[in-house]
Amino acid sequence: MLASERAMVEGHIREFFDRESLLSLDDPMARELLDAIREYTLRGGKRIRAVMLILGYMAVGGRNMEKVRKASLSMELVQDMLLIHDDLMDRSPERRGGRSLHEHFRAVHRERGYRGDPERFGDNMALIGGDLAEALAEKALLVSGFPPRNLVKALSLQADMVRDTGYGQVLDLCSVELPEWTEDQVLKVHHYKTARYTFEGPLLIGAVLHGAPERALKALSDYAVPVGIAFQLTDDIMGLFGDPKKGGVKDISDLREGKRTLLIVDALKRVSEADASTLLNGLGDPKLKLEDAARIRDIVAASGAVERSRALASELTERGRSSLNGAGLDPAICEALRELADEMLGRA
Amino acid sequence: MLASERAMVEGHIREFFDRESLLSLDDPMARELLDAIREYTLRGGKRIRAVMLILGYMAVGGRNMEKVRKASLSMELVQDMLLIHDDLMDRSPERRGGRSLHEHFRAVHRERGYRGDPERFGDNMALIGGDLAEALAEKALLVSGFPPRNLVKALSLQADMVRDTGYGQVLDLCSVELPEWTEDQVLKVHHYKTARYTFEGPLLIGAVLHGAPERALKALSDYAVPVGIAFQLTDDIMGLFGDPKKGGVKDISDLREGKRTLLIVDALKRVSEADASTLLNGLGDPKLKLEDAARIRDIVAASGAVERSRALASELTERGRSSLNGAGLDPAICEALRELADEMLGRA
Repeated sequence: MLASERAMVEGHIREFFDRESLLSLDDPMARELLDAIREYTLRGGKRIRAVMLILGYMAVGGRNMEKVRKASLSMELVQDMLLIHDDLMDRSPERRGGRSLHEHFRAVHRERGYRGDPERFGDNMALIGGDLAEALAEKALLVSGFPPRNLVKALSLQADMVRDTGYGQVLDLCSVELPEWTEDQVLKVHHYKTARYTFEGPLLIGAVLHGAPERALKALSDYAVPVGIAFQLTDDIMGLFGDPKKGGVKDISDLREGKRTLLIVDALKRVSEADASTLLNGLGDPKLKLEDAARIRDIVAASGAVERSRALASELTERGRSSLNGAGLDPAICEALRELADEMLGRA
Repeated sequence: MLASERAMVEGHIREFFDRESLLSLDDPMARELLDAIREYTLRGGKRIRAVMLILGYMAVGGRNMEKVRKASLSMELVQDMLLIHDDLMDRSPERRGGRSLHEHFRAVHRERGYRGDPERFGDNMALIGGDLAEALAEKALLVSGFPPRNLVKALSLQADMVRDTGYGQVLDLCSVELPEWTEDQVLKVHHYKTARYTFEGPLLIGAVLHGAPERALKALSDYAVPVGIAFQLTDDIMGLFGDPKKGGVKDISDLREGKRTLLIVDALKRVSEADASTLLNGLGDPKLKLEDAARIRDIVAASGAVERSRALASELTERGRSSLNGAGLDPAICEALRELADEMLGRA
């Protein structure tokens, strides 16, 4: 089901941009920005948030698939906004197997020999592009055809989601900047940046589009938050030790950026002073070498932090799974949500 | 009336942030970001967009002042988003007589001796802060208490306004980067960046909050667009030749940034080749000296461009004024809108 939903969502993304393109300003560069966002959206991504919105809608009995797929685009466009701005903040040159948006417009500037600074031009186009994607995300919900009363609730949740993700980004930013960092803070970032944003927000938005009662929303939240945190804990393990699906390829960008994961914070509490300073010295070093990353990995592995992260993820997943019981939600969709939680946990 | 509305809108801004502050994440730095946006919003600004929203609402017969003032905050918060991101793009250290948001957080970083790069920290906080302000702008409309059907229309207009301002910013960005630039392009930027954003958007949003008919919306648009362009033409004259209200203080930042105003584009068409190259060489030079700016001013003045800009502004203002007739709008509010248009024209 997920694969076919994904394909249909992509068809709607194309339609949405075709219509926006007709509405857009008759100016070549403005059109290029819109086209670049279109290409960026279609370039890839797992569409997990769009699918979550659709599942939230179906879980409370919604069956107008055409409308909900249209509405689900909003999640992909919010994601565009966050990724475009995130890449700008992290100065990442790549995204989804292509250039990040600022890198794309830096290249455009260079190739065409415009006046001025290509970096600044690219960065500014991406800053505007992210803001544009946010406006389009609102529009995607607004033109989906759901009743105004439900749309207002959905937009309110979407605005909260964007706001809370912003707070999560602030925390994340401070994880690199501040000297001290606790387990609670790590879980708070996961709560705000992943659980609310990737799981709870989309599920609830889908549910309110069908006018779901409070009880159903509470059950979906109680599922989404622990499962979302578990998802991020699993992601952090894969980030440090490699994604088995990609042949165990390890990505040291998390270490280079100095992000504090539960693995690191937990290990720091338990290892010798010498090992702790190896961790602290390597973390956030933009020129960290592969062999130093390997040393960090060994220290974390030996500390037992991986087992503890995995155990916490299992416990949270179990808590999320059981929250779906007895809230009057569609049984088949609940089963799909439970399977999804298990799959996500089983990745690492 | 404008002064008292402004004061009441500011009371509502305080209330709105007080409530958001209670809802916000219990994290000191996230709270600091929210507080910084609050301070930034209250620091100044003419509240012209909030007042326009209120006038649009009253023009079509709306009289629930409490509700419309609450809704009008959204305009100030959208403005925050655009200014915060604009300052980041232009690297402006100041805004509204204080530090720009990125500059504020750079200073926080330095004063507290955080790890990492203060510039990057400040810029990233401002990027997130702008996104946060946009989410809050949506929320301000959503919690205003108007019927969902009207809110959906208002949000749709707000999203269009943000999108079109984005397109206007792209054009503006290209005005610095591209070698050629026409009068049409200048007027297009004014249309998108000023007329739609500062005048048409807020007026229409106010009107739809009271469920205005199509005919009223058309009359308000036909007023707003020419008056908005005239406002920007007048602003450009004051930018180059000084604001008489500020004792004729001239600001050479427009010249240093290389913005192409109608004054410049019009003068370029008419002056000698030698004068044209003086203009082109000075324009966009970040180190432009005061005496070179004076020379540019003299060339523009001698070309007759100021008179032509002023004549166009007058003509547009007259066109806007007369568009308010016969659309069934409130006569007292129409009179206020006409006076406003005259006042704005009379500034330079």
